[in-house]
Amino acid sequence: VSRSRAEAAPSFIYVPELGARGDELVLGTEESHYLARVCRARAGQMVSGTDGRGAVARLTLISVRPQVRVRLDAIEHEDRAREAVVWCGAPEGARADCLVEKLGEFGISALQPVDCARAAWRITGARRARWQRVAISALRQSRGSRLMLIEPPLPLAAALESIPPGASRWLADPGGSPGQRPGPGRLSIGAVGPSGGFSPDEIALLQSAGFTPIPLASVRLRSETAALAWAAWWAAGAD
Amino acid sequence: VSRSRAEAAPSFIYVPELGARGDELVLGTEESHYLARVCRARAGQMVSGTDGRGAVARLTLISVRPQVRVRLDAIEHEDRAREAVVWCGAPEGARADCLVEKLGEFGISALQPVDCARAAWRITGARRARWQRVAISALRQSRGSRLMLIEPPLPLAAALESIPPGASRWLADPGGSPGQRPGPGRLSIGAVGPSGGFSPDEIALLQSAGFTPIPLASVRLRSETAALAWAAWWAAGAD
Repeated sequence: VSRSRAEAAPSFIYVPELGARGDELVLGTEESHYLARVCRARAGQMVSGTDGRGAVARLTLISVRPQVRVRLDAIEHEDRAREAVVWCGAPEGARADCLVEKLGEFGISALQPVDCARAAWRITGARRARWQRVAISALRQSRGSRLMLIEPPLPLAAALESIPPGASRWLADPGGSPGQRPGPGRLSIGAVGPSGGFSPDEIALLQSAGFTPIPLASVRLRSETAALAWAAWWAAGAD
Repeated sequence: VSRSRAEAAPSFIYVPELGARGDELVLGTEESHYLARVCRARAGQMVSGTDGRGAVARLTLISVRPQVRVRLDAIEHEDRAREAVVWCGAPEGARADCLVEKLGEFGISALQPVDCARAAWRITGARRARWQRVAISALRQSRGSRLMLIEPPLPLAAALESIPPGASRWLADPGGSPGQRPGPGRLSIGAVGPSGGFSPDEIALLQSAGFTPIPLASVRLRSETAALAWAAWWAAGAD
């Protein structure tokens, strides 16, 4: 978290439709507020932006009033060397808000809520909208180029059918062997049980689908804490 | 987070003054509510409890009304093989609430708020009281025997003077070498800068005090996220 470089760096915004070089863009409400009020940016200033799908652009702020307008000076596409998806059973209460924020900061590609025998997700429209705002804020904070996707919940069996070939698979489980590293694979999937844990049948299903048990701590963790711990483990294994 | 054992296990409570074998105890408001309402425990049931300072007791619930009373059947003291303290600069806004909860779950011994050149803590009495409740709830959840201490803030220089000999020292810093492990030392200290980062002077001070830079992710993390990532790294290195 040494931010000397980051502080010198231009403000960083999320612009879903970046367009091409030379284009002028009118920013949406949220990003306009962020640039004008939070960053107190002024006309003429350089800004960076991402479309959250891998493109990063250098922008110039043209005007703050009546609308926040930027000009796109240059754009490039960032490849992603490694990628992680978190499967998570439903935690208790509103605890998933913190989960979305932190997974976004760690650069997780997608959160896949998983409905399990012992707990199912209940995601209201308001909650989904809040998570989207939190994910965008985490993207800005980490100056990433990929917005974390928050998928609709899937039953575990359906999630298992969606795994692309070659993905490394990890099951948060106190019984696993410590000291493992994420490995060189491009895509890693981390599966974490709901409040109440995966059922024995679900654990058997995951293990037969190639999920390797990995202990994240010697103590009992809440679901969302285990998901964060897995994401931290993945993020630290980037060498 | 496989909880089959935990579910079969008795309810777990925090009792600051456990007393000795044969003693009868009247529980405080918070633990009474937790046992009677959250766990729906009934007279005759077995309960586990800790004083948060290493003692764990087997208790029997004697009565729920008019007061929640327990009898202490057995007590033992758990030694602690390893211990971690997190030094953390002030994060933005109310973000420290999530920090306290997760550090408590990872079994961190103490959170030492550190006042830095770029940010100082402002901790109201209400905030401190809330953190204490959050730490107790994390202790119950993880069924630990040590309540995380939340120390009053110290200036960085004063914190440096308080380090016991032999402690391993880590500085969250994107420039460090990846792949490091906590090592066999009994006490580990992880230092994380405030929102805005440690100043160059502070980083030099920490490095001259033997703090090894460790990168927790290849992306920029918020202070409290870096502190969680360090705690997860420490918790996973328990072998």
